[in-house]
Amino acid sequence: MNRTLTVELGERSYPIYIGAGNMAAAELYRQHIAGAQAMLVSNETIAPLYLDRLLSALSGFQIESVILPDGEEYKNLEVWSRIFDALLRKRFNRRCTLIALGGGVVGDLTGFAAASYQRGVPFIQVPTTLLAQVDSSVGGKTGINHPLGKNMIGAFYQPRCVIADTESLNTLDDRQLSAGIAEVIKYGLIDDPEFFAWLEANMKALRRREPAALAYAIERSCQDKARIVAADEKEAGQRALLNLGHTFGHAIETGMGYGQWLHGEAVAAGICMAANLSRRMGWLSAEDEGRVIALMEGAGLPVAAPASLSADRFLELMAVDKKVLEGQLRLVLLKGVGKALVTQEFDTGLLRATLDGKIA
Amino acid sequence: MNRTLTVELGERSYPIYIGAGNMAAAELYRQHIAGAQAMLVSNETIAPLYLDRLLSALSGFQIESVILPDGEEYKNLEVWSRIFDALLRKRFNRRCTLIALGGGVVGDLTGFAAASYQRGVPFIQVPTTLLAQVDSSVGGKTGINHPLGKNMIGAFYQPRCVIADTESLNTLDDRQLSAGIAEVIKYGLIDDPEFFAWLEANMKALRRREPAALAYAIERSCQDKARIVAADEKEAGQRALLNLGHTFGHAIETGMGYGQWLHGEAVAAGICMAANLSRRMGWLSAEDEGRVIALMEGAGLPVAAPASLSADRFLELMAVDKKVLEGQLRLVLLKGVGKALVTQEFDTGLLRATLDGKIA
Repeated sequence: MNRTLTVELGERSYPIYIGAGNMAAAELYRQHIAGAQAMLVSNETIAPLYLDRLLSALSGFQIESVILPDGEEYKNLEVWSRIFDALLRKRFNRRCTLIALGGGVVGDLTGFAAASYQRGVPFIQVPTTLLAQVDSSVGGKTGINHPLGKNMIGAFYQPRCVIADTESLNTLDDRQLSAGIAEVIKYGLIDDPEFFAWLEANMKALRRREPAALAYAIERSCQDKARIVAADEKEAGQRALLNLGHTFGHAIETGMGYGQWLHGEAVAAGICMAANLSRRMGWLSAEDEGRVIALMEGAGLPVAAPASLSADRFLELMAVDKKVLEGQLRLVLLKGVGKALVTQEFDTGLLRATLDGKIA
Repeated sequence: MNRTLTVELGERSYPIYIGAGNMAAAELYRQHIAGAQAMLVSNETIAPLYLDRLLSALSGFQIESVILPDGEEYKNLEVWSRIFDALLRKRFNRRCTLIALGGGVVGDLTGFAAASYQRGVPFIQVPTTLLAQVDSSVGGKTGINHPLGKNMIGAFYQPRCVIADTESLNTLDDRQLSAGIAEVIKYGLIDDPEFFAWLEANMKALRRREPAALAYAIERSCQDKARIVAADEKEAGQRALLNLGHTFGHAIETGMGYGQWLHGEAVAAGICMAANLSRRMGWLSAEDEGRVIALMEGAGLPVAAPASLSADRFLELMAVDKKVLEGQLRLVLLKGVGKALVTQEFDTGLLRATLDGKIA
């Protein structure tokens, strides 16, 4: 059941390996490590579970590790700088390789450290959460948060490979698994209606962690994402479709404080809000809005923003997010299941109705 | 006397404008600023002299500024992060442009902030020291220091243009001017013997700041550097020639503490040490070693390391620098004036003799 697919980015192309147990497959690492030194970056939750496995797979290298605290609230400048402290204390040279073992936070921190250490050294992603396997480890967005905004400091920087071990999902708690499924559903909604239908039919199998279902969902998600990234690596246009649910979602995350809602949970609610606004605009049928909500509910995900966030506060948070990003509020909305678009052409009155009624 | 030359880097090519008064030339900026927002980054020494001039040239834009402390010791993570604080407080979006007004420290901090803000926004270099005009503003090396090593965190990131105003050199003190001349001499030694001879003939004119001599030296230096950078943007090989004098020089800077010796002063002494070792190796004639030392002395620059740095300490500092960078000690040495080479093939006994005798 091992699968390999490639993110096509010219000389920056790289493989994604998906399969049970491949975290311990020494040959996967060795193909992609040119020098003698490897720095493992992980967090306090993941390291006790898997660090030894990687250390064995990497025997023969000068291998060191740095263990960071676990949580989105640590994706900041101070924690990022600890990676450089470790690299320099161990006198790692510019032929070293960084290896990110963990979820999206570890991957984003490590990737941005690799982009910046001595102006760029190679790195490998070993994502251990579903969210990281289907989203954050693929596509080369790396970075850290600033108190005034998420992911505001970073780099587009591609890994040498992604090693996704489906067995690592067995140690994920149900809430984390569901959070990852939110991004999986997103790919179906953007441009893969067939996959969306597959998810409707197989959601229970996914939540029971049936290996074949998980592997298929990961592979298909990575294919969908890789195609969009290959067409627009630095988000000049169509890559923005991947932000479906994210403008609403970021407002929830920021409004509630990082770490209260999981990223995938906020995205799930955000996608339902995008569907709701799309339906109010007359772009999406009530039936399709219902399918979106039902699938999110079936995945164990929230389908509405927290009641404590008023419409006014929501608009304020969205305005900050988007003013900083684009200079204007653009949203990813739906003209059908599998037909997302980026648009400024929405009715602000209807947007307010969505925020007021939440998903009503 | 306005000159324009181009750094040829494919789609990342950019012009260098050299001339008297062009810091205030609005049209130079306007050609290279796509969005509506510009953030001026400068330091406490330079801002009082020139900030108003740039503000006038940039009227019509949303223009903000952030003023950093002056000195190599401030090229660190904390000061770098103040640029993001300013950008986010002013809600600058990803179509903004950063403008670095100052010497090498301001340019390196600003360039790396531009590389990282929202994963990359455009920036413009307005170098105000000779060192920055002939070296640090050209070639796209940006970054910050770490307590354990110089320039250890950064990015290769090219500006949209470099605007070098020769009039700004009139406010430079003599020591800073000489420090810049060290890098100018370096270009002659690497691969431009005709320029080296020109410098021998025109050093007094340069130190008197005769505009024609300065403009010529800046243009020729930028041409020499641009050619080397174009051939090897990310320092896979020949770009390392630009480090002539720098391995010795970094050891002096680190050994004495950042800010005690100016970078150019340490490089001048380092170049004399490289010439001395080259002569001991039998690669450089005593006469040519004498020309190097005489030209550095004529430029008002140190030609030997500080006596307080022992040979042992020097070797230790060089080992750290190079172990971290390359995994092995490589030096840029001379086989003649205008014939530099990168090599590991030097005699360590002779290296020690150079360090012991300093330049004897």
